[in-house]
Amino acid sequence: MAAMKAHVWVMPKQTVLDPQGQTIQHALASLGFSAVRDVRHGKFFVLELNGLSREDAQKLVERIAKDVLANPVIEDFRFEILD
Amino acid sequence: MAAMKAHVWVMPKQTVLDPQGQTIQHALASLGFSAVRDVRHGKFFVLELNGLSREDAQKLVERIAKDVLANPVIEDFRFEILD
Repeated sequence: MAAMKAHVWVMPKQTVLDPQGQTIQHALASLGFSAVRDVRHGKFFVLELNGLSREDAQKLVERIAKDVLANPVIEDFRFEILD
Repeated sequence: MAAMKAHVWVMPKQTVLDPQGQTIQHALASLGFSAVRDVRHGKFFVLELNGLSREDAQKLVERIAKDVLANPVIEDFRFEILD
């Protein structure tokens, strides 16, 4: 029941265009970094959780990721719970 | 020398306010998710690299993270290279 952390990654779905990632890839190419063939740009969240069991933390973070942090129409998410 | 991936995390420095993270934390609290005590909001990038040795990929990604993806005045970064 101590403090826990959660990491949440939110990325554009593979089938969805990622204009920010493409812009970065083009910028890198114009700077001479042509070895970078593709860039995907996403969000990363670190949550600090208090007073939850690991099981409850799993459920809570999944719900928060799905309902608040990600837009499931165009984004995928994954998360991990750290003790 | 095959295709490789790199993951790059860019986060606000611990000493820097994170207004986006705070906004999300307040929103979560008002939605009843009071177990979430703190939120830090960062960026996550997936780079696809071609034709580099692992050592060159390390150097390249570190340079890109430092010079392009992160603002070292207010952000920290870390990265990993995946085969």
